[in-house]
Amino acid sequence: MVLYGAIEAGGTKFVCAVASGPDDILSEVTIATKGPAETLKEVVGYFKDYQEKSGEQINAVGIGCFGPVDLRKESGTYGYITSTPKEGWQDTEVAGFFERELKVPVGFDTDVNAAAYGEYLWGAGTGLEVVIYLTVGTGIGGGLYVHGKPVHGLIHPEMGHVIVRQDKNKDPFEGCCPYHGGCLEGLASGRAVDLRWDCHAAELAEDHAAWELEADYLAQGLINYILTVSPERIILGGGLMHKKQLFPMIRKKVQEKLNGYILIPAIQEEIDNYIVSPGLGEKSGICGAIGLAAGALAE
Amino acid sequence: MVLYGAIEAGGTKFVCAVASGPDDILSEVTIATKGPAETLKEVVGYFKDYQEKSGEQINAVGIGCFGPVDLRKESGTYGYITSTPKEGWQDTEVAGFFERELKVPVGFDTDVNAAAYGEYLWGAGTGLEVVIYLTVGTGIGGGLYVHGKPVHGLIHPEMGHVIVRQDKNKDPFEGCCPYHGGCLEGLASGRAVDLRWDCHAAELAEDHAAWELEADYLAQGLINYILTVSPERIILGGGLMHKKQLFPMIRKKVQEKLNGYILIPAIQEEIDNYIVSPGLGEKSGICGAIGLAAGALAE
Repeated sequence: MVLYGAIEAGGTKFVCAVASGPDDILSEVTIATKGPAETLKEVVGYFKDYQEKSGEQINAVGIGCFGPVDLRKESGTYGYITSTPKEGWQDTEVAGFFERELKVPVGFDTDVNAAAYGEYLWGAGTGLEVVIYLTVGTGIGGGLYVHGKPVHGLIHPEMGHVIVRQDKNKDPFEGCCPYHGGCLEGLASGRAVDLRWDCHAAELAEDHAAWELEADYLAQGLINYILTVSPERIILGGGLMHKKQLFPMIRKKVQEKLNGYILIPAIQEEIDNYIVSPGLGEKSGICGAIGLAAGALAE
Repeated sequence: MVLYGAIEAGGTKFVCAVASGPDDILSEVTIATKGPAETLKEVVGYFKDYQEKSGEQINAVGIGCFGPVDLRKESGTYGYITSTPKEGWQDTEVAGFFERELKVPVGFDTDVNAAAYGEYLWGAGTGLEVVIYLTVGTGIGGGLYVHGKPVHGLIHPEMGHVIVRQDKNKDPFEGCCPYHGGCLEGLASGRAVDLRWDCHAAELAEDHAAWELEADYLAQGLINYILTVSPERIILGGGLMHKKQLFPMIRKKVQEKLNGYILIPAIQEEIDNYIVSPGLGEKSGICGAIGLAAGALAE
């Protein structure tokens, strides 16, 4: 049996698993994110422990990592976290560390590209030419699969930071993105919701005015993605999307804002099947990391 | 010698050529766009005349077409212009017409995907993973090549219609997009410039306030594309981009608006080589159509 180590490396936690495939996760652990040295040591310790106790070898590792990260294989800092605002994590080698410590091939991509990959392989995005996975959590990030491959390009998509319009009369909040103020992430991330309403997003009532505003900003982001890259499906994950009432609100606003410009049943009539929850539930990222490990082994 | 018929089908003119390759255009003609029946007949007449006079057969045709168009090969209206605002041209069969009339394989894509393809094959986009060609003319449209293939997805990119921010105190113009008012096309297309200043864009002085505003809106559009799909190069063509002073203004505003978020030399230091003029000058579209014809023949 081939065994994969899978890591969903986030700013608040590292979800780590050992699996032979997406339907066969043999062990899983969540490790709180501390400083880089300590955290990475704890993660590699988990894999080494697993190997020791089971007597089985892990054959490859896949990592979906918070970022920005360096994905240019020819670069001297390939597999590093680069200019992240996460304190202490700037310029941290990630992929190479696991390669050396576990002596296995390592597949590496952004957290959201990994989630998009999981959904592309086994979830709501199978067989599609263009798939977007957007996570709406503490921050907002998007992964993009086109023609069956992740899109990296110049660095990788940073969809959370697209420009949206704000009506300052309705919403005077100045936006919390340290780079752009009121970009999408600055206005619609979990952090923005917490700050604007001075209340944790999860605790806001289902009919709170926060959600109308949230749906509006997210719909604006989605419009920009639809017009730019023409996705065949948009998958919305992350903590805020547990507020299921957001889905119909976002769908309606996307239709209103496109205003009949894209006359196609997927948007006009079947939008419930166009803007969707992850097919893999909470497992998109870890399954994507399994896929990345399998890809690294095949190479 | 293999001969290709190439068509750049636009709302105001059809540029048509016969060529054996991008460096060997044997004949070229421009036909004003009238009603669909009349225009298409004139175009096919040009190719038939060429064949008759030269005694040579055209082996395939490539068409870059204004739209929206239907690119889904399995669709009953594949190769049609669909919901265009261009009067009389809604639901017009284009690809199939040339296939029947000339009895050759026909490659078909949007005008801007064709231009992006031309640039990808022989211009400023060769060898890149993600390339955008944006035309800023009467309207604004973008073509997208990823992993060496055009992106169609749900329909095809419609980049001209992304959301931008407008400061109504600086620019009270209401926007001229019939669908979205002040989207990018509504505020920054040639039509928008003409209407806002009540003067043809080409006649506005180089230091007219129009260009500062124009550069700002275009930079906002580019920011949205950069964050969504991470292009390795953005090629700006079309009539308005003949105003060469726009390039440095747009580049500077892109840097300012990204505000150091994407820390990579291509944007920080080498932006002159990142946001560029078409490598093929005015020939991106017609060369792309030659490429589409060659592709159709190879299939």
